[in-house]
Order: sequence, then C-alpha cells, then structure tokens
Amino acid sequence: MSSQPHVVILGTGFGGIGAVRKLRDADVQITIIDKRDYHTFQPLLYQVATDELGPEDIGFPVRDLLHGHTNIEFHQATASGIDLAHKTVEVEGLGPVLYDYLVIALGAVVNFFHTPGADQSAFPLYTMDDAIRLKKHILETFEAVDKNPALIDDGALNFCVVGGGATGVEFSGALAELLRAELKEDYPNLPVEKAQVILYERSPHLLAPFEAKLQSYAQQALEERGVQVHTGVGVSKVDPASIELSSGETVKTHTLVWAAGLQANPIVNSLGVPLGHGGRIPVGPDLQVKDHPGVFAIGDIAAMTDGETGKVLPGLGATALQAGRHIGETIASLVAGKAAEPFKYLDKGTMAQVGRGAAVVELPTGGTLTGRVAWLAWLGVHLALLNGSEEKTSTFVEWGWNLLTHKRGKRIILSDEEAAGHDNPDP
Amino acid sequence: MSSQPHVVILGTGFGGIGAVRKLRDADVQITIIDKRDYHTFQPLLYQVATDELGPEDIGFPVRDLLHGHTNIEFHQATASGIDLAHKTVEVEGLGPVLYDYLVIALGAVVNFFHTPGADQSAFPLYTMDDAIRLKKHILETFEAVDKNPALIDDGALNFCVVGGGATGVEFSGALAELLRAELKEDYPNLPVEKAQVILYERSPHLLAPFEAKLQSYAQQALEERGVQVHTGVGVSKVDPASIELSSGETVKTHTLVWAAGLQANPIVNSLGVPLGHGGRIPVGPDLQVKDHPGVFAIGDIAAMTDGETGKVLPGLGATALQAGRHIGETIASLVAGKAAEPFKYLDKGTMAQVGRGAAVVELPTGGTLTGRVAWLAWLGVHLALLNGSEEKTSTFVEWGWNLLTHKRGKRIILSDEEAAGHDNPDP
Repeated sequence: MSSQPHVVILGTGFGGIGAVRKLRDADVQITIIDKRDYHTFQPLLYQVATDELGPEDIGFPVRDLLHGHTNIEFHQATASGIDLAHKTVEVEGLGPVLYDYLVIALGAVVNFFHTPGADQSAFPLYTMDDAIRLKKHILETFEAVDKNPALIDDGALNFCVVGGGATGVEFSGALAELLRAELKEDYPNLPVEKAQVILYERSPHLLAPFEAKLQSYAQQALEERGVQVHTGVGVSKVDPASIELSSGETVKTHTLVWAAGLQANPIVNSLGVPLGHGGRIPVGPDLQVKDHPGVFAIGDIAAMTDGETGKVLPGLGATALQAGRHIGETIASLVAGKAAEPFKYLDKGTMAQVGRGAAVVELPTGGTLTGRVAWLAWLGVHLALLNGSEEKTSTFVEWGWNLLTHKRGKRIILSDEEAAGHDNPDP
Repeated sequence: MSSQPHVVILGTGFGGIGAVRKLRDADVQITIIDKRDYHTFQPLLYQVATDELGPEDIGFPVRDLLHGHTNIEFHQATASGIDLAHKTVEVEGLGPVLYDYLVIALGAVVNFFHTPGADQSAFPLYTMDDAIRLKKHILETFEAVDKNPALIDDGALNFCVVGGGATGVEFSGALAELLRAELKEDYPNLPVEKAQVILYERSPHLLAPFEAKLQSYAQQALEERGVQVHTGVGVSKVDPASIELSSGETVKTHTLVWAAGLQANPIVNSLGVPLGHGGRIPVGPDLQVKDHPGVFAIGDIAAMTDGETGKVLPGLGATALQAGRHIGETIASLVAGKAAEPFKYLDKGTMAQVGRGAAVVELPTGGTLTGRVAWLAWLGVHLALLNGSEEKTSTFVEWGWNLLTHKRGKRIILSDEEAAGHDNPDP
C-alpha cells in the first residue's frame, strides 16, 4: 500500500463512476468494489426488457476506467457491511478493506411494500438481471402460447405493470409498441391483438413529479398505443397466474412488472446511523454522512438535498452523476488541505419517453415540451449522458440504426443454463 | 391443415435455413421445429467465447423467416423422436407431428469419447450456450484470480484446449490475443503474462484436412501469438483442477476447452436405421435416407457424400447451407412431380483464422493462401455467408468497428440467475 490516502468507492452506478472520473488524477489510491464488473446505463434498462437494445449495449466494463491509471484497483465482489467506527468495509472474498475516504453509492433494491406474493411472482425492473429476466419471460410466454393457445384464456397475454413513474410509463409504452409491431409479425398464427398492456398507478396521476398537462399527455399517448391506464388503483396481492387490485378485483396475468417503489440497499443497516425515507442515508449539504467526515453517500442509497436550496433531489442518473463528480472533486480538495463545498444541483430538466416519437420534458426554466420535439430532446440528452467515446459509438450505432429502420434487436431467447454438474473449483 | 404437402424441418442451422429459403415460395406447408428461436452463425462462435462479438451478433431470429409468408409455422420445441414408419415426429409440448416430407438437420453434440471426467469438467464449444458459458468462465477466472492471486499457482491461468481442428486453432489464437491485449490492460495488478494458452492435438499435425505447408504456417502463427502447441498428445482424463495427458503427464488447469470431436444428435437412435461414423445418418446422392423416400438428412447429423464423386463432404456451414438449398429445391421438384437430382457440392475453399491478420485458405483450384491476404479472403467469405440484409448490416457494423479499432466487445459478465423462487406457471 502506498502512503497516499485510500479512497474506497462502493458501487459503479452513475454516482461511483462520476466520482472515479474526477478522482483518478488526484494524489490518492482508489479501490472500487462492485458485485458486477459493468456499469449499467439505467435510463435505458426498459429498452433491454423490451428488446430494443441488447444488454451489452447498455453495460460498460468498469475495468475500462483503469486503463492508463496505476492508482486504481477494481474488485468484482460484494460489500457486505460497513464499520464506520473502524473505517473498514467488509468485502466477501477479500476480508476487511480499510479506507481513509469512503463513497457509498450502492443504489437501491426493489420495495414490494410487503405485498403478499410479490417477491415470488412479480418482475422488478431495476437491474440488468431484472431486465434480461423480464425480456426472456415475455418472449418465452409467446413461445408457450404459440404451442398452447389455450393459455390466452388463462391471462398469459395480459402484461400488467404497477407503478406509473418513469419506469412504468416507459416500459408500458415500449412493450405496447413491441406487441403491435414486431411480435404481431413474428406470430402470424396467433391473435396477438388480444395481448394487453395494463398499467396501474395508485395515485390519481401518472408521472407524479411532472406538471398536470404532461401527465395528461403521457396518459393519452400511452392509450393511443393501446395501453390500458388505470389510475387510483394499486396491486394488493400477486399470485403466479393472477393479481388482486386494491379495488378488490382479480385480474388474470402471468406477468406483473413491479415499477412501484425502491428502498435503499440493505447495507445501510450495518451503518448504525438513523435512516431516512425508504432507508436512505441522510447526508449534509456537502454529501457527507453526519458525524462521519470523509464518508459520502450519493445516488439512490442517499437522501440528497440541494446544498443551496435544501430541496430534495430527484432520483435520476443525472443527479447521481453530478453528485459523484462533486464528491470526487471534494475528496481531491480535502486531500489537498482545502475545505468541502456544498453540492449545488444543476437541474437539466426531467424527461420520460412514452414511445417512439413521443416524450415529455420539463425544462429547468419551467417550460415543458411534448411529442416529437420532446422525444428528440430526450434522445439528445441520453446520447450526451452516454459519455466516454467507446460507449457513445457502439450504442449510438446500434440505437441510431434501430431508430432509423424502426427495427428492434433480436427477439431471441439466450438461455444460460449453467453447465449442470460442472464442479470446477473456485472458479 | 391445408391439402398442400406438409414439410417438417427439424433444426435451424445452416441446413434447415437453406431449405426453408428455397421452399417457402413452393406450394407446400412448412413447419420448422427447433429448441432455440434463433439461428447460430457457427463459424464465428469462437469469437463469442473470446468476447470479440456478442451472442446477439451471431444469433438471428428464426421468426424473421416467417415475415411475409403465410405457409410457414415455427415452434420453439424439442423434437424427441422420429417414427419413420408412421411418418411422425414426436415434439415435446406439441405431441406427434405428421409429415409428408421430413428434413433432419439437427446437427451434432460434443463427443467426449468416454474420456473420464470430461462431461463434468470440460468446456465444449459447439453451441451458443457453450460459447457464453466459456466466455463467462474465462472472465470469472480472472476476477477470482484478481481477488486471490494464489490461484495462479493452482493453474487457474492455464487455458488448455484439446483438438487442433479449425475450432481449436481459431479459439486458441483468439484467446491468446485477448490475454495479451485487453486482459493485460484490464488487470494492471496481475501478472497476466503468466497466463498460457496450451493446445493439444492427438495427431501429428494441426488442421488435419489442410495441406502440410498450411499446417506449419498455422502452428507457427499460433506460436508467434504465444500459444504452446503440442501435437501427438491427447487428453486422457479431466479433473476440475487438472488434466492428464496421453503421455501420462498431469497439467494444472481450471479450463479445458473440448474441441476434439462431435457425434450426431442422439435423435438418430430413434430412426431404427444403420448409422455411420459418429452416429451419422447415411444418405444417398440426393441426400434422401435409404428406403425412406421424402426423408432427408443434412449437415453435421448426416454422412453426406458428393452426388457426383462420392467423396465425403467437409463438415462446414457452407456445405450444410448448399445441401439445405439443394433439398429445398428437390422437395419443390418432387411436389411438382419431377425427380430428385443428386447433390453436387461446389467447393468454395476451406479456411481457418489463426488470429487478426492471419489465416489459412485452401482454394478450390488447389492453390493456397496464408497471412493477411488469406485473412481478407476469410473475412470476405464470412461476410458473404452472413446473407440476409439485416444480419449482414448489424454484424458487419459491429465487426467492422471492432476490426478497425482493434477493440473487443465488452468483457462483462452478464449473470442470468433465474429469479429464485419464481413460481409462475408455464411459463
């Protein structure tokens, strides 16, 4: 170990990546820990679930961050606990790792709010594994119905989604387009028009943080694409072949996509600090954990507020990326003997895609956009977010090609049966 | 069911696809059965195993063949037996399927030749699942060694390959390049130069069907890339952390890639006909199964000979594709009341890639090519084989990009844990 301060970064989402990029030229030693060896470009996860993009189009190798830098290590491993008193992180397979500065950026996990059956039968959509599993399930459902059309009466082609936030809205719109175009062509002998996308949102409106006219536009655009939208209705029970609604009604379905809530990564329970809403870690204006200087929490695992206005910040990739960059700069300042600055969030707008050529955008100036102009803005912002030249190029090529030709990816089911009986030692 | 003759095509490899393309405009009803919903472009499988291409770059949806054609059905299902007497195929989940004409194009499975431990611990490389599993294993091995460098002394970085045919040679060359370039950059803290690719071939020469000077060139080109080549040596036992050679020597390794042999898909045992070498189905000059007019066998499952010269045909994608087209035309002729013609194989040459910028080509005229010219020929032929415009474009873009930039794909480990406890009904 060198005598440089040791910065441990837990998580390679937008927050962790932003911090590494700002820190790696500073006079520090960096250790990055994540259980996956790739960064997931989460805003486009629903496009993997609906087979518009392949998993490798939105998964970028963490080890690329190391090229040309000798002061960074990455270990693909799971952090299982944090001991703030002894300044160590317990990492499976590595043991305790000592830190001088710690960045907790491990994101969230799904929150089923104790809904009976949800953890067995619902499909969350937050991680790459979730998206791959959901895509496989949708395609496998069609193959099963192809062999046994009686499954249609059993609800196999009712695709239900709960949660009318950006994830639920974007997924529903994209799935409706997949059904009406590609799957209809792929299954000429099936009554694909009987397939339904049904979106439930417990509150009275979709896209809660958006202005009323954008909420109405989104609902109308979804309905034009064939999505049934039910607001004021939640899901109270999930069974393998049906769901129960908060209204008491039962709906036959083999697919409930859970886009209704997140909670902080459970590692927060090892911290021994008071937690906020959804188990999130409260942080000060400079994103440091109270009473623990040098420990930062950012992104979906943290309850971040704007350092100037005190407003709660939205749970977006762009927010986490800005926060990551800020603490990267902060740690570099602290190491150089300077003081930490408060984090000022630069609102670049909020947006959601409802379908091809349809999006809603709330501009930072207070204005709004809808329709094709909004969609082009959405496209531009996401391409800009995909920074780093390699990522930009390959995804851009694939994506641009799909958009121009109105073609999707592959709609193939890649199984991944682990070699049964393979008894190689570790690994 | 219509009164058109019913053609059942088992398998969507080069043979099955070739047959469908020639038949779908004829006055027949076609049913395609395959347990996967995609065609695998097998000549580039080793590039998936070494992460030069993603699985979706060489997997093409079978259902694309249906678009615009009302006389084709596809079912993703496993054919478990063929009853030649009753002209039916037993299909799991569908029951017996009656045929008027049958195309058996189900390919091969790995042949371990009863080598002890091989079925538990060796990695075959014949299917897409094989390639994905092998790639994951290689990347996971590096992650494990990164956390525990002592595994190097246990042989974790010895990558052994048995079988010096095209698959073994192409995989070894590509893996050596992956180790020396990308993985060295990805693991700056590991002694990646200690990683070895060791290729064993039981016969005295690599690439048995090629001319001697091409065999020597291939061996030299592999050795220049750092591959240890051992000819005259086979593998006689496989353990999880070592292999035993035919010489009696033991070599520590966690990875033995099995490229040493194939046998016909075991469905051949249900036919009740005498079988040839490796269980292959003997066929006549017109590719019909003896005494069973209207039943054709092609590709790796068949012992095909040239209808003119009687020479045994090479087990190549190009051979299967030509054979598939021929029987597509033959069935169309038979339906129209014409006679079957013998299959005349058009030799377009044989080739193997040893590494970037290095290949060997045996021209149909008897000449040979090596080095960069051979490699460009290899590239051109494979791009031409990737016919069908969509396939050509997307793989071409990805591939061209990688070749021009000397960049690989992603080197990321996409896990695919099935949702534990997911108890949805079928599916």
